[in-house]
Amino acid sequence: MTLDMEGVLTPEIWIAVADKTGIEALRRTTRDEPDYDKLMRYRLEILDRHGLTLSQIQEVIGSLEPLPGARAFLDELRSFTQLLILSDTFEQFAAPFMRQLGMPTLLCHRLVVENDRIVDYKLRLPEQKRAAVAAFKSLNYRVIAAGDSFNDTSMLIEADAGFLFHAPDNVRRLFPQFTAVDEYGALMDLIRGAMAGR
Amino acid sequence: MTLDMEGVLTPEIWIAVADKTGIEALRRTTRDEPDYDKLMRYRLEILDRHGLTLSQIQEVIGSLEPLPGARAFLDELRSFTQLLILSDTFEQFAAPFMRQLGMPTLLCHRLVVENDRIVDYKLRLPEQKRAAVAAFKSLNYRVIAAGDSFNDTSMLIEADAGFLFHAPDNVRRLFPQFTAVDEYGALMDLIRGAMAGR
Repeated sequence: MTLDMEGVLTPEIWIAVADKTGIEALRRTTRDEPDYDKLMRYRLEILDRHGLTLSQIQEVIGSLEPLPGARAFLDELRSFTQLLILSDTFEQFAAPFMRQLGMPTLLCHRLVVENDRIVDYKLRLPEQKRAAVAAFKSLNYRVIAAGDSFNDTSMLIEADAGFLFHAPDNVRRLFPQFTAVDEYGALMDLIRGAMAGR
Repeated sequence: MTLDMEGVLTPEIWIAVADKTGIEALRRTTRDEPDYDKLMRYRLEILDRHGLTLSQIQEVIGSLEPLPGARAFLDELRSFTQLLILSDTFEQFAAPFMRQLGMPTLLCHRLVVENDRIVDYKLRLPEQKRAAVAAFKSLNYRVIAAGDSFNDTSMLIEADAGFLFHAPDNVRRLFPQFTAVDEYGALMDLIRGAMAGR
């Protein structure tokens, strides 16, 4: 089972950091700037301009909580199947959430940090979510995937079964082949159904 | 980071089941019967002959404990890197140990169970440990691996860095290229060293 993190188990990190720090410019998302590299350079420049170090951002993230019910959902899921979190966030940002979620295995990208200053970022791989699902299929796993946004859909397509969770209307409309739900209980039913071959 | 389970984090399951049930025939290992399929058919036949159900074996396994220090070792490891346990055991046997070890992600084989009777087993893949390491390297991970026995060595060879832990003398002699240690503290030092590029 592979799950997206932000929007599915935790708040969106950049939005939450914008909220907590009051830096409105950090609200910019791929909807405003479709070029991810440009967006990330812009974000890192803003952090730099405000003199925000990695520790300070981690402190902000550490004050956030996973979505209500996320931990119980994961605990139940991990009692009957193997779970990987696939996220386009960075290991250093996700760490405080992982501790609150019982340390599930997380595959994501990495920030390049020098003396507590974020100087660059390193994408693990283009399309890493899709690639990770393909890798697990090559190990003879049947993979079920769930995510909330456009960048999760290639992972859902690659998986043996895919579901949308907390997805906005436009994503639901573009991908009607994926059942879309908004409650952990409903998602759990879909997962158990897919595992039982229903 | 990938780790073998039996001998590294937990006792050898079949030996422990033999100890607890007093069924000496379950002590037979690949050293006595090199053909794994023959060995497994022999084991399943013995379980059947003694009328041992999966629940009964799980109860025996549930009364066992991971090796002293294993949980603390894993907790420290998972605080700074992503971990996968790669084992040639079966999900149903490993589950009681995983609960005691903080539910790390485990890739292994599966038993085929009907009405609580183990009727067959399903290998995920031949050479699944080596294949899993190769899959993670294809996802741009640098992989460090540790294991105790001959069947771990292809995983160690495939990894970017490999260590023997609790390995018997013959394995150490055959694979002198892998540093061999017997204490979690020493293994942790080797892992941190490999991650720091030492």
